[in-house]
Amino acid sequence: MTSANIDYQKVLNQIQQEFADIHPSGKVASYIPELAKVPSDKFGMHLYDLEGNNYNFGDSNERFSIQSISKVFTLALAMKVVGDDLWNRVGVEPSGDPFNSLSQLENDSGIPRNPYINAGALVVADVLVSYFTNPKAALLAFLHEITGDSSIDFDTTVAASEQAEGYRNYAMVNYLKSFGNIENDVEKVLDFYFHQCSIAMSCRELAQAFIIFANHGTVLDSDREFLTGRQVKRINALMQTCGFYDEAGEFSFEVGLPGKSGVGGGIVAVNPYHYAVAVWSPPLNPKGNSALGMAALERLTTLTGFSIF
Amino acid sequence: MTSANIDYQKVLNQIQQEFADIHPSGKVASYIPELAKVPSDKFGMHLYDLEGNNYNFGDSNERFSIQSISKVFTLALAMKVVGDDLWNRVGVEPSGDPFNSLSQLENDSGIPRNPYINAGALVVADVLVSYFTNPKAALLAFLHEITGDSSIDFDTTVAASEQAEGYRNYAMVNYLKSFGNIENDVEKVLDFYFHQCSIAMSCRELAQAFIIFANHGTVLDSDREFLTGRQVKRINALMQTCGFYDEAGEFSFEVGLPGKSGVGGGIVAVNPYHYAVAVWSPPLNPKGNSALGMAALERLTTLTGFSIF
Amino acid sequence: MTSANIDYQKVLNQIQQEFADIHPSGKVASYIPELAKVPSDKFGMHLYDLEGNNYNFGDSNERFSIQSISKVFTLALAMKVVGDDLWNRVGVEPSGDPFNSLSQLENDSGIPRNPYINAGALVVADVLVSYFTNPKAALLAFLHEITGDSSIDFDTTVAASEQAEGYRNYAMVNYLKSFGNIENDVEKVLDFYFHQCSIAMSCRELAQAFIIFANHGTVLDSDREFLTGRQVKRINALMQTCGFYDEAGEFSFEVGLPGKSGVGGGIVAVNPYHYAVAVWSPPLNPKGNSALGMAALERLTTLTGFSIF
Amino acid sequence: MTSANIDYQKVLNQIQQEFADIHPSGKVASYIPELAKVPSDKFGMHLYDLEGNNYNFGDSNERFSIQSISKVFTLALAMKVVGDDLWNRVGVEPSGDPFNSLSQLENDSGIPRNPYINAGALVVADVLVSYFTNPKAALLAFLHEITGDSSIDFDTTVAASEQAEGYRNYAMVNYLKSFGNIENDVEKVLDFYFHQCSIAMSCRELAQAFIIFANHGTVLDSDREFLTGRQVKRINALMQTCGFYDEAGEFSFEVGLPGKSGVGGGIVAVNPYHYAVAVWSPPLNPKGNSALGMAALERLTTLTGFSIF
Repeated sequence: MTSANIDYQKVLNQIQQEFADIHPSGKVASYIPELAKVPSDKFGMHLYDLEGNNYNFGDSNERFSIQSISKVFTLALAMKVVGDDLWNRVGVEPSGDPFNSLSQLENDSGIPRNPYINAGALVVADVLVSYFTNPKAALLAFLHEITGDSSIDFDTTVAASEQAEGYRNYAMVNYLKSFGNIENDVEKVLDFYFHQCSIAMSCRELAQAFIIFANHGTVLDSDREFLTGRQVKRINALMQTCGFYDEAGEFSFEVGLPGKSGVGGGIVAVNPYHYAVAVWSPPLNPKGNSALGMAALERLTTLTGFSIF
Repeated sequence: MTSANIDYQKVLNQIQQEFADIHPSGKVASYIPELAKVPSDKFGMHLYDLEGNNYNFGDSNERFSIQSISKVFTLALAMKVVGDDLWNRVGVEPSGDPFNSLSQLENDSGIPRNPYINAGALVVADVLVSYFTNPKAALLAFLHEITGDSSIDFDTTVAASEQAEGYRNYAMVNYLKSFGNIENDVEKVLDFYFHQCSIAMSCRELAQAFIIFANHGTVLDSDREFLTGRQVKRINALMQTCGFYDEAGEFSFEVGLPGKSGVGGGIVAVNPYHYAVAVWSPPLNPKGNSALGMAALERLTTLTGFSIF
Repeated sequence: MTSANIDYQKVLNQIQQEFADIHPSGKVASYIPELAKVPSDKFGMHLYDLEGNNYNFGDSNERFSIQSISKVFTLALAMKVVGDDLWNRVGVEPSGDPFNSLSQLENDSGIPRNPYINAGALVVADVLVSYFTNPKAALLAFLHEITGDSSIDFDTTVAASEQAEGYRNYAMVNYLKSFGNIENDVEKVLDFYFHQCSIAMSCRELAQAFIIFANHGTVLDSDREFLTGRQVKRINALMQTCGFYDEAGEFSFEVGLPGKSGVGGGIVAVNPYHYAVAVWSPPLNPKGNSALGMAALERLTTLTGFSIF
Repeated sequence: MTSANIDYQKVLNQIQQEFADIHPSGKVASYIPELAKVPSDKFGMHLYDLEGNNYNFGDSNERFSIQSISKVFTLALAMKVVGDDLWNRVGVEPSGDPFNSLSQLENDSGIPRNPYINAGALVVADVLVSYFTNPKAALLAFLHEITGDSSIDFDTTVAASEQAEGYRNYAMVNYLKSFGNIENDVEKVLDFYFHQCSIAMSCRELAQAFIIFANHGTVLDSDREFLTGRQVKRINALMQTCGFYDEAGEFSFEVGLPGKSGVGGGIVAVNPYHYAVAVWSPPLNPKGNSALGMAALERLTTLTGFSIF
């Protein structure tokens, strides 16, 4: 099976058309006041393949708040700098619980079930805060390097908005610290975490950034290996089993690709050896994932007859 | 990426050699008295690819009790006969709990989290008991058809052994029935379930049976489609996220293939579009999966540099 | 504080009058078909004090299904015959869960949290089935002895009705047996359990039976000690903390007496050193306790200004 | 039954003697560094009855950190100032979980199960912080008034010690605030809470303070009613069902009195209409309650043959 014989632009056009009159019933994330302001009818998609081709439609060039999609970038960076030691502090199993659940930590002595639930991402953030003198600059540098675009940046208004209402994340870090699984000052870890979530990127930029996960860890047209094949296998496996909180099974079942969603309405998915694809539509289903985004990706693998399964 | 340029026999030989002196520390399943009698040093592996080639080593032709691996066959058969109605009675999410947990049912009103935990497999069994006049014969017929081997059969000694000690499964079916999610008589459902688990197959037979999950639902050298591509995508996705109970993430992370284990020490995995592979070694790790089997499959995808991710 | 200066009949008359026009909004238990037939407006109350006086109103002489109230009798009998060994198989802590929850057993390796949740009562039933050649006869003999009334009997229609729909109790006993905490045949334990729940008694008979828990274990006008003071302290303490499932705190808080409810709509409470009181009204609140019964007992301790606290 | 015919001093002497050579195997609380410094062999007891008599032995006049015992005082004060509105924000059921569990809040939308687990006490603290301009002064004033001893004070070293390591309490307040069940600034609530826990009192002072809970809410030799009988009934009922975390049933079962423990090794218990008693021994059992304290109180009700049951 190869990507070559599929006309991706035609498939994307069909998806755009199929959903042209759909107004998804979900709600735009409102717990972060700044996100609630985003128009609910934004809709865009961008697919970038290993031959370097770009296919897209709609609002695919407009930046939005990537939120939890950033957890893939921080995980990749942490795996790069601390290696397998990371797995002493965070697990690799699906949680069966919502993204912001604290209950699981109680049974597992403060070891988050995986790096994509909030608790796990906070431990990963702590790892980066310990390792880098300036972790925020290091994260941006990593993104600039894999995308070749140095304009990608934090949205400090969003970060501040999240900080002001982030009681549950404050609860989470303090709770992790009570188990000894946070090394740094609570405020420092949360400042980094709220900033990573506030990063603004477009579907095009996300697809281009995620191509390393479809390409053994190497940027296209470059011989620079950012991650090893083993590391990429693990990052993709974690997206597959844990990328959509308590809807990971549903996404795997319907779409059949490793992927990661964010409450800003973005979803990125990877077809290893073939392409990375990003979609954006703000209204969320009850599990907190973009309703239209999931449907669009389901159509992508159904219309092409081509998933990892 | 194609399978063509890999010398699978050489890879299997290396795996056999690497583990020649390893005595896995796990324990052979003992809760079913009959299984406890199996020698702990049995070890075999068989890989069957889409070109029809067979590669193997060790005890790959010796039959063993497939136990929970049978859940993939019954799921496939149930999807075939009742279609998407099945998903009203069983979910598709990983459970985060052990295979025989009853707790989850309490929170979810008797809807098992997925068809590979025992509760879910019992609901699938009930579906088949409702649909077929002779469900045991129907299951064997299905296996005979996809493998072309009509000698595959139940091991009635094992079934009887499991029945005698199966209090937790009796508890499970009664509990499901209290929620109205079992239609048939408790004894009838359990009789079918204990029989499906008792099926004896070798690594070779399992690899050949599972090739339909690597080949869009079609048996090799045949134009008969047993399952649609969409059904196969879903079966594989469920193996990926739920095939190893509370170790599904670990298997996905280390091996990177959809697969299913059984307490008889067998594991089958699928590399869609490429091959199916079965491995057998009775000693189980603390999560109830074959310790050596998982390690051998990790070596397979590492040595070939080739997983679904 | 003594009972002497309170005119209990006047207090009961006032309670009867206050609730004369109240139609409690709860529902009569319907999961046991036979219980659903009981008229919802039945209402009676009987108080029996240590001086041997009887006070009552309404349907206090009509027998009804005592259901879970029987757990106090079986616990008392089990404590009498096996002593403190009982506590190796069942705990003494409130569960915080509904009466028929299975989840707790999973965390605590099959040791029920207390003898008043169904799981605990089933273990107590198993103890009696092991100890007595004819446990059903032994239980009736015990009741006949402490009440002096040999007409108290099982309602075999109710027992049969419960058996036919008792899937959750079947689940529970099998589950307990899977942990090794049931010694006897599942059917035998359940037959005893469904019979104990089916016992029919009136408020008058219940108050007279419970007087031993207000009187150090001794029947009034007799020197025969059925239970020691230490045993009675423990039985009362368990009623206080665990007698109303996940509403034990509410009952303790509002009423301030140890007590036990049944889904037949009965509640019995004890004011140690003073009196035993029973009330009956079939409609149940959402937690499964008689709505009017709880309210009537709250009025009793409020109007008399006299509880254990 | 009256208190009059019991020689309490003789009973206390016997208890002192029985435990003279016992070195309880528990551990002194170490999570608050300042508490870890207290000698483990401290042992004292003081009983104060409604006739105004004092009985005691050992270190009964030495002050120690009352810790969670303070939750009874803050609950009493909150009930006094806001009345039944309090129960909209905190429940009255035993939790079945450890004192510092966060899990329960997740299922119950941020309503703590009862006012004696940490989460509940933090909500009570928030109520007082909202009501009083100077809540710390108000709490001390309440204690000075009911004891007649104006030297009772906070131990600011202990409060600071707790604040420095109080990550789990920080987690709890932030978590409660994420559900909207904390009105005030997190730091302000915790500052009050750490101070209330740091109060230093002796067994004698505790017994004298708790006499209002044995005397309908009125201080001895005074006609001033601090709390109504209904309020006292509820406070005692909550101590009975929830005063010892997940060991409330055990305490009720063994001792048979409402009581409250603290990790400083103190326990206070009340025999309504008769006496209040306090005991102090720092080593804690695995549930976090004074091991020797529980044993001493069990001897008290056994030797006197007199509990609430």
